[in-house]
Amino acid sequence: MHFDEPLLLQSGASIRAYDLSYETYGTLNVDKSNAVLICHALNASHHVAGVYLDETGHVKDKSEGWWDSMIGPGKPVDTDQFFVIGVNNLGSCFGSTGPMQVNPDTNEVYGANFPVVTVQDWVSAQARLLDVMGIQTLAAVMGGSLGGMQALGWTLQYPDRVRHAVVVASAPNLTAENIAFNEVARRAIVTDPDFHGGHFYRYGVLPKRGLRIARMIGHITYLSDDVMNEKFGRQLRQTVDLQSSVGEPCEAPPQAGVDASAGSALQPAKRDAYKYTTQEIEFEIESYLRYQGDKFAEYFDANTYLLITRALDYFDPASEFGGDLSRALAKARAKFLLVSFTTDWRFSPARSREIVKALLDNQRDVSYAEIDAPHGHDAFLLDDARYIGVVRSYFKSKVAV
Amino acid sequence: MHFDEPLLLQSGASIRAYDLSYETYGTLNVDKSNAVLICHALNASHHVAGVYLDETGHVKDKSEGWWDSMIGPGKPVDTDQFFVIGVNNLGSCFGSTGPMQVNPDTNEVYGANFPVVTVQDWVSAQARLLDVMGIQTLAAVMGGSLGGMQALGWTLQYPDRVRHAVVVASAPNLTAENIAFNEVARRAIVTDPDFHGGHFYRYGVLPKRGLRIARMIGHITYLSDDVMNEKFGRQLRQTVDLQSSVGEPCEAPPQAGVDASAGSALQPAKRDAYKYTTQEIEFEIESYLRYQGDKFAEYFDANTYLLITRALDYFDPASEFGGDLSRALAKARAKFLLVSFTTDWRFSPARSREIVKALLDNQRDVSYAEIDAPHGHDAFLLDDARYIGVVRSYFKSKVAV
Repeated sequence: MHFDEPLLLQSGASIRAYDLSYETYGTLNVDKSNAVLICHALNASHHVAGVYLDETGHVKDKSEGWWDSMIGPGKPVDTDQFFVIGVNNLGSCFGSTGPMQVNPDTNEVYGANFPVVTVQDWVSAQARLLDVMGIQTLAAVMGGSLGGMQALGWTLQYPDRVRHAVVVASAPNLTAENIAFNEVARRAIVTDPDFHGGHFYRYGVLPKRGLRIARMIGHITYLSDDVMNEKFGRQLRQTVDLQSSVGEPCEAPPQAGVDASAGSALQPAKRDAYKYTTQEIEFEIESYLRYQGDKFAEYFDANTYLLITRALDYFDPASEFGGDLSRALAKARAKFLLVSFTTDWRFSPARSREIVKALLDNQRDVSYAEIDAPHGHDAFLLDDARYIGVVRSYFKSKVAV
Repeated sequence: MHFDEPLLLQSGASIRAYDLSYETYGTLNVDKSNAVLICHALNASHHVAGVYLDETGHVKDKSEGWWDSMIGPGKPVDTDQFFVIGVNNLGSCFGSTGPMQVNPDTNEVYGANFPVVTVQDWVSAQARLLDVMGIQTLAAVMGGSLGGMQALGWTLQYPDRVRHAVVVASAPNLTAENIAFNEVARRAIVTDPDFHGGHFYRYGVLPKRGLRIARMIGHITYLSDDVMNEKFGRQLRQTVDLQSSVGEPCEAPPQAGVDASAGSALQPAKRDAYKYTTQEIEFEIESYLRYQGDKFAEYFDANTYLLITRALDYFDPASEFGGDLSRALAKARAKFLLVSFTTDWRFSPARSREIVKALLDNQRDVSYAEIDAPHGHDAFLLDDARYIGVVRSYFKSKVAV
């Protein structure tokens, strides 16, 4: 969807014209009351459910939407009943206007000049998309992690346009530690000589070293200590079950996890026998992380990484109210489902409970589920029966139109 | 101390000749029974206590030993009573033979060719130093974090040469998450174009970008979420108390925390007013981390960082016993004091309790203190009254000769 009217951003800058990539699933009903907006987190897109077909009509490999376990016909967010909208956010790198695209004012690629965007800006842009679709009120807005911040943001910016908000594995703002991890990742990218101050496109290079490090740090924080120990522990390379997977797309065969810059060929290790090396892979967890980093650096835009982590850092609805979240959430009119995961140390249950408490302080209708899942922050993307069941129940009994 | 007899390493490699830098404090008694060996962690040295004087007899700025709160006349490890030895480990960069020095076999700087050293190798080298000093039995061996691993290693390699082992904020091995953080730090260093496969000395450059990232990651894991929130929270730059400090040497005035590679001059931020920037410093925590990274990159050797983090990864006395720590510790004859800190998520109290349990399984004499300190892993270096008091009591009542 193309938008010609400029969007004034929270920073004071504006985007003159922009596109939003989106997908929809199911059918909008006659009174346009069954729309569910899905907000994505750091590295996801508008492709939230279903699969793509290739020219011959076959399902494309790995084309499954990132929340396909949650959304579809007969699924918790049932597309036989709801009209689901996935939208790629401004500044991202999956089709919506972002740093990789040309700034119409200068005819140059935005690069580092793409304006800083916030959760508030994304919500404003999403609202315009709904305006064009003629959707006045959402049956629900839903997201996990940074997506949950957008869902919460919706209830504050457009309190009368949201009936339900489903906020999963999220937080009312980032802690100092959260910001710290984001900052290290950003520094890794920005100090990569191939970053060129954010204008690497001009040089025909990509700051892959930095992106790899950023992704490796991210992955550590997405998983729990427990699941890492269970899945990888201290296993040496090639002793782990290659078929098993953990967390976010972890389809990595460990032998693929070779970073050419290590500068030496890898030898298979005997079980429980160290190779005594500082640069080669010794433990399975290293192989996994390198693979994840390599894969990410192939497809993700470095400037987008900076922008999206900054949007996380900046989100803080209580800041206007002297840090009082209860006062900040007084504006919300929606009904809420909050979900957190016990082993999520990135956005811990305590952070969700802060939101629950602030909503209850305002006599809001709020359901809260704390899921005892082992997978850490990544749990919000996974097919945990209790989690899926809670969302299913909520949509069936509360959101149903 | 120079050693001419080759040291055979755990890897099978050997070092033909080497030096160990060491310092001693106090006086060795006649029967040589009052020696206490202090083992250092990642970035420390043999300079564990006291201060240095300059040529004019004045105390040099910031020349205080890294465990000066613990060791000295009248302190918990009382140098009026004990003969304390600090020794810099092989592979480190503070005087003992390491990657920055010339390999006598090739007449070239070792660089990445320095052999991989382990906790076991360090303990062997330390034992040789004691041999030369004529010390058969240590009153105590003591260390925190990686230093605690060495102390534990002493009780297994030389069970008859250690009367007491004081193991602080340590673990019987690293978890997958611990290894993961080490690996990301190593990758940041190894993929820095200035690393040159570990032979950067030849090129007159230092892989400072990688070292900065490594140190920033390290720092996050040394501090607790709580102390980060208390000290920095979401404060914007220049709103924090510049005089206050946290954790390891955090004497950083935040305005010093500028990384030139960010490419733009920093403007002072108004309180609670965002600058909307992805590359400049916005939050105080960012300033703190950048400063710590910059400082570290000035003085620490990149190959040493790889070696020492690998020594951490490799330590695992239970591995020879199918993972059974109780069987592994059956060899130990020493009496033990274990100390952990409640907010230490790098080496959590649960890891110390594993050691306590395994020692009790062997009917060993073990004291254990779990200190409710807010400072995370760094607490082992800080002047917490309960912690200092426990060590004082232990040395007074148990170690005293």
